Amino acid sequence: MTIAHADLGQPALIGLDWGTTALRAYLFDAAGRVLATHASAAGIMTLHQPGDFDAVFEEACGPWLAQAPDLPVIAAGMVGSAQGWREAPYVDAPATADALVRGIVHVATARAGTVHIVPGVIERGELPNVMRGEETQIVGALAGDPTLGGARAGVLVGLPGTHAKWAVVRGERIEAFHTFMTGELFAALRHHTILGRTMRDADAPDAATFLRGVEVARRTDRAGLLATIFSTRTLGLTAQLTAEQQPEYLSGLLIGHELAGLNALLTARGTTLAAEPLRLIGSPELCERYRLALAAFGCAHATIVEAATERGLWRIATQAGLVAAREAASEARPDA
Amino acid sequence: MTIAHADLGQPALIGLDWGTTALRAYLFDAAGRVLATHASAAGIMTLHQPGDFDAVFEEACGPWLAQAPDLPVIAAGMVGSAQGWREAPYVDAPATADALVRGIVHVATARAGTVHIVPGVIERGELPNVMRGEETQIVGALAGDPTLGGARAGVLVGLPGTHAKWAVVRGERIEAFHTFMTGELFAALRHHTILGRTMRDADAPDAATFLRGVEVARRTDRAGLLATIFSTRTLGLTAQLTAEQQPEYLSGLLIGHELAGLNALLTARGTTLAAEPLRLIGSPELCERYRLALAAFGCAHATIVEAATERGLWRIATQAGLVAAREAASEARPDA
Repeated sequence: MTIAHADLGQPALIGLDWGTTALRAYLFDAAGRVLATHASAAGIMTLHQPGDFDAVFEEACGPWLAQAPDLPVIAAGMVGSAQGWREAPYVDAPATADALVRGIVHVATARAGTVHIVPGVIERGELPNVMRGEETQIVGALAGDPTLGGARAGVLVGLPGTHAKWAVVRGERIEAFHTFMTGELFAALRHHTILGRTMRDADAPDAATFLRGVEVARRTDRAGLLATIFSTRTLGLTAQLTAEQQPEYLSGLLIGHELAGLNALLTARGTTLAAEPLRLIGSPELCERYRLALAAFGCAHATIVEAATERGLWRIATQAGLVAAREAASEARPDA
Repeated sequence: MTIAHADLGQPALIGLDWGTTALRAYLFDAAGRVLATHASAAGIMTLHQPGDFDAVFEEACGPWLAQAPDLPVIAAGMVGSAQGWREAPYVDAPATADALVRGIVHVATARAGTVHIVPGVIERGELPNVMRGEETQIVGALAGDPTLGGARAGVLVGLPGTHAKWAVVRGERIEAFHTFMTGELFAALRHHTILGRTMRDADAPDAATFLRGVEVARRTDRAGLLATIFSTRTLGLTAQLTAEQQPEYLSGLLIGHELAGLNALLTARGTTLAAEPLRLIGSPELCERYRLALAAFGCAHATIVEAATERGLWRIATQAGLVAAREAASEARPDA
């Protein structure tokens, strides 16, 4: 891609990361640099009327589009689900960025523009798995690190969060993945079971207590999470955990069970967490937790990927010709 | 124990099963037969003022005590916890009925009577376990089936529910036990996570779908519950489970993970679910679910124990001399 000098610093693309609980909008220049961002809590879960998506879109992007009405717009995440703005049917794993581009669907906006929605990925089988949004972040991780796509043995990409995803990526393809409901289960246990009643939020992270939970899960995994989580309460009852330590310990237990389960799946494939190249995508605080926990499983080489979402939106838009088309249009205009 | 004929059919004991969410009171005659019951939702969680326990006790037992003011009263369950009427410190496992009797604490009622509160049991160790109420039910199961106490190899007693307990009982001692938060986790997932959003309650049980969940947990247990529960949603998304089937499937998954974890613990002790004599204590509907699930683990010999709570309260009161004392008092009164 060649970029005319005059285009640098000028808006070239809008990218939307539109999930269940939040919307984040990025304004890119022609070199893929982020010029501006807009964030709101208007996730798709909060939108119920047909016009809601347009209204939120207008609030987020209206000012940018007022300046440059022809800006292409790409979106990823739950906005493409059946409960979203327009459903973008899942692409089957193994999935490449090209397959994602071919699966893009279009929705017309009230201001007569078009939003290009990136599809999610489905892995079929006895226990199907789905992702929406994470596929774009994985493409972003590959885009930011060309050595990853070439890794023959595959790379493990972890995306901690409400529904943590772990994907095996090989030759720029999302080959397989698993979903662990770790974040959502933590919140449900914290706020809607007896375990939460003796807890108090701590002022600062407590890595030692977190790792204690990780270790219990790692060593006693055979009893399973249903059995170990009750120890959050009994260690409190026996004065071995303070009210502030209990949430840290429970977080460690759950992440420990997640990694123990993942490790068992890898072992069945002839590898382990300790043996795989590994990337993490997510909030710095959460990635740091996972890095600590991974070290307990012998994996000291987990690398945190920065700006995966932005890179992914940019890469898919480029590959879909959205940005090139804009550049061509710019070059044709004498005032560009 | 000899019982005067005139005492049969006359009230001899009040027993209270007073837990977190409910109170059940039993009026026994001198042969341990239940003459009357009283049930209310006044579990200890609903009681906050110092006088609340007395008020609920009066409502439940006042009419019985008005007729027979000297009736002894025994209580088991969370009423003996730190949040209960009076704390009855845990007895250490391995625990016999004698040890429970020695641990009874007393609380004076507003009407100048005494309530005898049975202590719970604690198993200390890296991951402590506690029970309150179940120890009384286990004593009741032993009381109703004298062959159980003599089983040298031990008997496995399962008490499904909010916090399912599995106890190893040998020679009339509660040797060891585990707590699985299966019931409470099901409720939290059903009502406070994304899994519940696509569910509808079914009109009737669906054993086939329940067993499908059990089988998934049994065969894919190594990935762990955090990974398998998401399939409740994805099997719905891919039209393989209806909205009504999803709660049944999730129930099967959770109970399946519980039994897989238990089986792994037993295997580490050199036995299996299929090899152990096994008793179930709980609501008939829930015990039937567990019996179905246990069969998938090769255990076709699970027997449901009836009236374990009543039998346990009666047995501990007898062993504590509460009923004998009453009989002696009765005999001393010419009008008895």
